[in-house]
Amino acid sequence: MIEDVIIVGTGKVAYHFANEIKSNSKLKLIQILGRSKKLNSHFNEFSEIYSSDFSKIKNSKFCIIAVSDNSVKSVSEQIKNYDGVVLHTSGSINMSILNNQLKFGVIYPLQTFSFERNIDFNKIPLLVEASNKKILNELIDFSCKLSKKTVIMNSDKRLICHLSAVFANNFTNHLIFASEELLDKFDIDRNLIHPILEETILKIKSISSYDAQTGPASRNDLETIENHLNFLKKNNLTFNVDIYKSITESIIKTKFDKQ
Amino acid sequence: MIEDVIIVGTGKVAYHFANEIKSNSKLKLIQILGRSKKLNSHFNEFSEIYSSDFSKIKNSKFCIIAVSDNSVKSVSEQIKNYDGVVLHTSGSINMSILNNQLKFGVIYPLQTFSFERNIDFNKIPLLVEASNKKILNELIDFSCKLSKKTVIMNSDKRLICHLSAVFANNFTNHLIFASEELLDKFDIDRNLIHPILEETILKIKSISSYDAQTGPASRNDLETIENHLNFLKKNNLTFNVDIYKSITESIIKTKFDKQ
Repeated sequence: MIEDVIIVGTGKVAYHFANEIKSNSKLKLIQILGRSKKLNSHFNEFSEIYSSDFSKIKNSKFCIIAVSDNSVKSVSEQIKNYDGVVLHTSGSINMSILNNQLKFGVIYPLQTFSFERNIDFNKIPLLVEASNKKILNELIDFSCKLSKKTVIMNSDKRLICHLSAVFANNFTNHLIFASEELLDKFDIDRNLIHPILEETILKIKSISSYDAQTGPASRNDLETIENHLNFLKKNNLTFNVDIYKSITESIIKTKFDKQ
Repeated sequence: MIEDVIIVGTGKVAYHFANEIKSNSKLKLIQILGRSKKLNSHFNEFSEIYSSDFSKIKNSKFCIIAVSDNSVKSVSEQIKNYDGVVLHTSGSINMSILNNQLKFGVIYPLQTFSFERNIDFNKIPLLVEASNKKILNELIDFSCKLSKKTVIMNSDKRLICHLSAVFANNFTNHLIFASEELLDKFDIDRNLIHPILEETILKIKSISSYDAQTGPASRNDLETIENHLNFLKKNNLTFNVDIYKSITESIIKTKFDKQ
């Protein structure tokens, strides 16, 4: 049976859910709701099913709220007289924020999204939680149509996954930024660090991140560490100094703890 | 003309140079020198050309010193009456450390090495520097036989590349470690974060790391940041608190500066 789905939101998460559901033969995207009168251009192909009038919400099996964390509550308050399952997609918000709804739950995609890149939804871990067992079963069934990696997880553990993803994605991305900025500042081709970046990630599939660690901190090579810090200070890269110190101390502590 | 090469060292960098040179039809590995009497098992296939007696160093075109940073000087002092080009492979040591040699230079591979993984040498950026122009030309010629990415770079700029690689590799790897440890600690499958890690790296090929940034810090979402920090503190993850704070502050600062 083909299930009807509504999406609320016009950001990156909404965009990727919309694209996936649109091309999924077992699901049908029947409406997108959003606050803005005019839809942003990434959603052009969805303009016919778009509405900014929440009172016109259609009947459907699921309604996916994919908006910024601090808007989930107010969006849910605007969804009235809806008898499908309302889901939010946030990693860090408790499911109970939706308890003004009859049936509710969470479907959190543990992935980073951008408008510019396609992502194979099948490989995205979808962490699901629901307000009761019956809805959970329906949600699992729905989630399995989207991805091969559906995992049941409560709000507390989902927060831990989100925090873990902040380290793995946001913070890693910022280190790449810091690393590229450093090369840019001194007119060195930033592409030079791309091979080592790729290998860093490929490595962890065959070696643990603990065993994969190399470099001055893991050797406790204080002379090189001092050289690096002096260089950063001399060039007023204050924030990089703080990052360098905190991570270096943690690497040294990690080695020390395990030995 | 096939060029003879000697390697000093029995670590990961030495191992990868040895394997590459051995399988390279334009080069011939004629000797490996090391301090230990007994060769470690990764070098089994090289046992016939191994010696721990530096006085028996053979004639060759190049001698690559691939030892830990703080041993380069003492190793170079043991290499006497050698008339080939002596190269070190360190990112952070000035070329001048080899100035007891007649002809010298640097060939620094901007990559992370492990015994467990093969690496396509052709794609490794090799940063080269030499004590004079004639030697530099010979070194470039040599380096191009190993990799398609040979780049001339002086010691000061090489240090910057090394520092950049510390951020991109060592620090990134430690964030992956922190991220996995967090999941382990709460019995959550650590593989859950691998898809987002892969996407993090793939992304930067099509979007800049600045534009790719997402998450609480880049949205200045103080409530989620506070939640995360409280969680880390409550669980005594002190080092993760320091890392979280330093990177979050830097991400916020970066956004603020560019706006």
